[in-house]
Amino acid sequence: MHKYLDHHLWKIIEKGFHPEHNRISESVFSLGNGRFGQRGNFEEKYSGDSLSGNYFGGVYYPDKTRVGWWKNGYPEYFAKVLNACNWLPIHIKVGEEVVDLHTSKVISFERELNMKTGVLDRTVVLELKNGAQVSANWSRFISMADDQIAAIQLQLKIENYSGQVSIRSFLDGDVHNQDANYDEFFWEDVITKNSNESSKISMTTRKTGFVVSHGQLNTIEAEKDVTFSRSQINNERQCGEIIEWKHEKEESILFTKYVCALSSLVEDAHSHFDLIDEKILTSKHIGFNKLKEDQAKKWENKWEWSDIFIEGDVAAQQGIRFNIFQLNQTYTGEDARLNIGPKGFTGEKYGGSTYWDTEAYCIPFYLSTSDSHVAKNLVLYRYNHLDKAIENAEKLGFKDGAALYPMVTMNGEECHNEWEITFEEIHRNGAIAHGVYDYIRYTGDREYMLEHGLEVILAISRFWAQRFQWSEDKNAYVMLGVTGPNEYENNVNNNWYTNYIARWTIKYTLESIDDPANNKSKLIDLLSKLQFTEVEKQKLQHITENVYFPMDDKRNLFLQQDGFLDKEIIPVSSLDDIHKPLVENWSWDRILRSCYIKQADVLQGMYFFENEFDKETIRRHFDFYEPITVHESSLSPCVHSILAASLGRADKAYEFYLQTARLDLDDYNHDTEDGCHTTSMAGTWMSIVQGFGGMRIGEDKIIFNPFIPKEWDSYRFHVVFRGARLLVEVNEKESKITHLEGDQISVVLNKKEHSLSQSDIIIK
Amino acid sequence: MHKYLDHHLWKIIEKGFHPEHNRISESVFSLGNGRFGQRGNFEEKYSGDSLSGNYFGGVYYPDKTRVGWWKNGYPEYFAKVLNACNWLPIHIKVGEEVVDLHTSKVISFERELNMKTGVLDRTVVLELKNGAQVSANWSRFISMADDQIAAIQLQLKIENYSGQVSIRSFLDGDVHNQDANYDEFFWEDVITKNSNESSKISMTTRKTGFVVSHGQLNTIEAEKDVTFSRSQINNERQCGEIIEWKHEKEESILFTKYVCALSSLVEDAHSHFDLIDEKILTSKHIGFNKLKEDQAKKWENKWEWSDIFIEGDVAAQQGIRFNIFQLNQTYTGEDARLNIGPKGFTGEKYGGSTYWDTEAYCIPFYLSTSDSHVAKNLVLYRYNHLDKAIENAEKLGFKDGAALYPMVTMNGEECHNEWEITFEEIHRNGAIAHGVYDYIRYTGDREYMLEHGLEVILAISRFWAQRFQWSEDKNAYVMLGVTGPNEYENNVNNNWYTNYIARWTIKYTLESIDDPANNKSKLIDLLSKLQFTEVEKQKLQHITENVYFPMDDKRNLFLQQDGFLDKEIIPVSSLDDIHKPLVENWSWDRILRSCYIKQADVLQGMYFFENEFDKETIRRHFDFYEPITVHESSLSPCVHSILAASLGRADKAYEFYLQTARLDLDDYNHDTEDGCHTTSMAGTWMSIVQGFGGMRIGEDKIIFNPFIPKEWDSYRFHVVFRGARLLVEVNEKESKITHLEGDQISVVLNKKEHSLSQSDIIIK
Repeated sequence: MHKYLDHHLWKIIEKGFHPEHNRISESVFSLGNGRFGQRGNFEEKYSGDSLSGNYFGGVYYPDKTRVGWWKNGYPEYFAKVLNACNWLPIHIKVGEEVVDLHTSKVISFERELNMKTGVLDRTVVLELKNGAQVSANWSRFISMADDQIAAIQLQLKIENYSGQVSIRSFLDGDVHNQDANYDEFFWEDVITKNSNESSKISMTTRKTGFVVSHGQLNTIEAEKDVTFSRSQINNERQCGEIIEWKHEKEESILFTKYVCALSSLVEDAHSHFDLIDEKILTSKHIGFNKLKEDQAKKWENKWEWSDIFIEGDVAAQQGIRFNIFQLNQTYTGEDARLNIGPKGFTGEKYGGSTYWDTEAYCIPFYLSTSDSHVAKNLVLYRYNHLDKAIENAEKLGFKDGAALYPMVTMNGEECHNEWEITFEEIHRNGAIAHGVYDYIRYTGDREYMLEHGLEVILAISRFWAQRFQWSEDKNAYVMLGVTGPNEYENNVNNNWYTNYIARWTIKYTLESIDDPANNKSKLIDLLSKLQFTEVEKQKLQHITENVYFPMDDKRNLFLQQDGFLDKEIIPVSSLDDIHKPLVENWSWDRILRSCYIKQADVLQGMYFFENEFDKETIRRHFDFYEPITVHESSLSPCVHSILAASLGRADKAYEFYLQTARLDLDDYNHDTEDGCHTTSMAGTWMSIVQGFGGMRIGEDKIIFNPFIPKEWDSYRFHVVFRGARLLVEVNEKESKITHLEGDQISVVLNKKEHSLSQSDIIIK
Repeated sequence: MHKYLDHHLWKIIEKGFHPEHNRISESVFSLGNGRFGQRGNFEEKYSGDSLSGNYFGGVYYPDKTRVGWWKNGYPEYFAKVLNACNWLPIHIKVGEEVVDLHTSKVISFERELNMKTGVLDRTVVLELKNGAQVSANWSRFISMADDQIAAIQLQLKIENYSGQVSIRSFLDGDVHNQDANYDEFFWEDVITKNSNESSKISMTTRKTGFVVSHGQLNTIEAEKDVTFSRSQINNERQCGEIIEWKHEKEESILFTKYVCALSSLVEDAHSHFDLIDEKILTSKHIGFNKLKEDQAKKWENKWEWSDIFIEGDVAAQQGIRFNIFQLNQTYTGEDARLNIGPKGFTGEKYGGSTYWDTEAYCIPFYLSTSDSHVAKNLVLYRYNHLDKAIENAEKLGFKDGAALYPMVTMNGEECHNEWEITFEEIHRNGAIAHGVYDYIRYTGDREYMLEHGLEVILAISRFWAQRFQWSEDKNAYVMLGVTGPNEYENNVNNNWYTNYIARWTIKYTLESIDDPANNKSKLIDLLSKLQFTEVEKQKLQHITENVYFPMDDKRNLFLQQDGFLDKEIIPVSSLDDIHKPLVENWSWDRILRSCYIKQADVLQGMYFFENEFDKETIRRHFDFYEPITVHESSLSPCVHSILAASLGRADKAYEFYLQTARLDLDDYNHDTEDGCHTTSMAGTWMSIVQGFGGMRIGEDKIIFNPFIPKEWDSYRFHVVFRGARLLVEVNEKESKITHLEGDQISVVLNKKEHSLSQSDIIIK
């Protein structure tokens, strides 16, 4: 844990320079606008330890797979988000010395990310070797109002020095991925172009052919009359300009860099340079301050929809706002080709690809805090990958339209290459079906089912139907050789969660086909196109009625998998700290044969399908599994928090909530340097809204059973549901729901149902 | 399958040049003497497809591991045998043209490996572009009589040409491993030295510091009076000489290259160059023909001990002799630091490292065909690695002197990095204990137990005792998370074979401690040194009495592992050919959840512990498991062959025997290009001797129950047992055992016991 950031309601503040934590800060001070994003690297030259990162959503490179021992079926490539052109550099040279926080003496340093406005400010005072004192006030943002625009402003004051000063502002295309498997340069066809006002660079990804272009336009002004001489930089992979002037003591200059960033995902590559010129000229015309205002306004709107306010706990307030800020920066839902990488735009790790995290943790957040098209684009993302999922299943020997969605993907193709995950952690398929269910249930968009949803869930059901096999021995359908959500078990038989979600998928598919509300002719056409027959229906039906679930009758417990009780069951609390985290201290086989659970598995199922179990059953399973869960995935505590809350165990719920509330701000797991745990942030949001707020979705209604952790005075959050925007306020005495705007909806508060219209308030 | 080699009783013959099979030929025509060896590469320049290979036993490089996803506990290095200096090159230049079988026109080509004498001959006639016809008769061998010596002779005749001819004979240190993980050069400190008569090169392996040195001395003579001008080659990594002369039409010259090869394993590196000079001068003095005679004599002796003669089946005769030849070339038992790599000296694959193949398949061969010190060095090899095996177990969390021998090793350290193998295929530990048992039972060397054996088997028993865990659920000791010999199952619970051999190891350890023949004071000292207590003894005893074995009561069957009957049991015979081999056509998960068995697993146990099961039990298990076994390891058919034989199923036994009898000669599995299946060759030997010959070892006696496959007229083989050399002759009518020489021993032939002394014969 590294707690060096100040607590504040709306801001992330680093006071004093912490070069030893620079990579952590770079992750935490990341900026993004859903389209592109960037780690919190410095504009100045920095020769210290740093992970430079500029990423473009949906722009990836298929890096050649690296394996120890090849297994048949492995993909040859691992698509990873590439480090794109770095548009930050604004290097300052005073006399012969280049300003560098690593080598210059830092007199003062403060940076501040204002989450309310989406602006990153930084004030640095340095003393150079020649005695000059350089004060630099930086301000930058990546525009949410126009997702092709970014801007940086520098107020530079140099004291104690007269002489030549220069600013070298450029676009740097000489970028590499630190996680490249074979140290390759991922780009080709680097084209640079300087004109009088602007510099532009265009680069094409190797193999995938995405074109990403950047342009910059600099303005500079001084308080007094200063002559700036400008010259161009045009290296093989860099372009920009050098602005030089003769500095007089204590003079101050204002430098602004307008940036435009485009990719061929959105704009035809041939028009990039023209469009860039147009955009940056317009930006310059609008001016930095106005652009910053637009940015703040856009963020104000985001916060209106998604803010959670906590009274009485600044650390918690800052933590949850940071999470919401990151989630909104990472995904805006404007493009169904994009998704949410586990690290968003804050690092290279996990290749920026899509995992089941999206369906299991992120969709609920976006459903509740954005217009419904945002979550819809997430489910459409999978619909658009259906053909690839079918191909993927075919590669593994499945047929007749069965689909296996990839564990890790960019464009629908599987990228992961670890047999026990790639081929066996197939429960992800169930989460993808559950995403469809979540979307339709939340939004009421029933038409989606026949338009897109059914094709996906039927293809998944077909996979399950083939993956289940009849056991003569058990007289039931079994599923052999799987890895459940708990990745500390590999290649097990009859993982309860997987069997359960597989059966649920098939049931949901059959119910959806039989839904009386369906448009009959549409349905018939669709089923005919999908070659769905009565025989197949009966086969599916037969499976739903005969799935085997491992049970311990003595304890009246569902077992995580066959043979689970052969393990020695020793609670984590009896385990000496030197063993933790297991993944760092135990060899893999020891982890596998231990009882310890990495993340919710049976309990994940009970969370997803809470209605299908009575409280007593959930309690029994919680009491059995939670004590042997090590939560070595950041996606684990939230599920436990929500279940604990629903079992009335407020303290426990709060304890789990705390485990991820400030995961990145406090570098809880010592890995924030790689990037923030973006998808896990949605889990923390769920801990509050679904856990403390007790929010659930019923049939065409939204349900709340709130309580307040005793550490807080009050909290309130916003959710949208079926076109209505609600404010839920909870304090020790009462819970209050206000219908802020929008359509009339049904709201259940503490078991009592109400119909709410604009300005209606219910209190209980 | 590629059948392009001629059948012959004693020779491997390739008539006509087969460049398309060149890598296969290079494997098959490999030479070795236990100390160093070489693929059948050409002396001439060859620009066609080739895998150059020169290997030194015990000289390895720790290549940095390559993995997809790192797991805690993986070794950082994979020790692999390195490609050492290539001492072959004798390049011939006629005018401006270098003789190259890839570019010159091949008029005739024949090569012949004489297994009886250990000499490789090759006759080539080529037509060059300038019309010259070059006839080259090559002869070479790696001396078995002096394991630091090799020699090559070339009779060169050039017709249709007059003019300059040169021979470029050199030692080539510019060698790489094709399987290097990161394309590194594995050697450093390359020193070359030319003197008037000789050229020498010395190279040191990076990191491990082994010094390997080679020297050469060339002689050349012509029929007529020819002036040879000699000049030296001295490049960075090469040395040697160029011999030039003016060739007159149809003249013939005789060129001889004497080679000495040393490693610092045997000779102090500082003395290498002096010793080389001494050795090659002596070789020259002795002369090529005399050296060749010594080679033949040495091989004659080898064959006296190990030959199997088959009458009526030339292909089978050639096949088994090739196997025996390779086994004798690979391991001679003179150095306990050496072992038998899966490919011997015939290729790089599997890194030349030691696997459990040694104990499971090779020890019986060397026990029966060599002096007892040969097999003793194989068991001592493991004794010498005991400390490393204990360290290896400690890395995985075991303690108190528990040992886990590595899956793959050079120097005792684990080199493998695939969790389901490295950490879980722990049955290898049992095979190593079984090797001790085999050695003592065969040789009667009971003293070995207290001297070395007990330390090893107790350390292994301690591992088993910790690896077993008590299951409250089953009220027995279970072993979770293992991979059995059948690697088409990973991370299973209670693999029957592993549980069985683990329990056997513990029992054998306890019996060995309690052996009344033990020297009491030696025993007490040893047990005290090993801190073996009565408490531990009782704990071990308790385990042996309470091990769980998965059973199907209905079928009265031991199950390969827990849950095996959940699988669909479909015989291999019902599987369409397009699926085979599974490893190439099915994704890994599909293989894992299928019922198909890669190699003997339960049956491997019944083979090892045949006495502990009645015939009916073995038959039942054979009939259940064999039909679902795909034999996709070359180590599988032999075990099935032997069991089928003991069940009286002669046809079946012969059928299995055929599957590996000519594995490499006919490139049965399309992979001989990587090298020969050296360890599997011992399995084929077992198929004949233990299968057809029915040889078993009893308490101080050797047992035979021979039969003859109906395809053969007769067969006979030699075995040694307790200082006696026996000839076993079998034909349709009778079996005959002749005591050729040595001590008096007990022999059981067809259930009747006899005491045999020299020249005694029994017939039945």
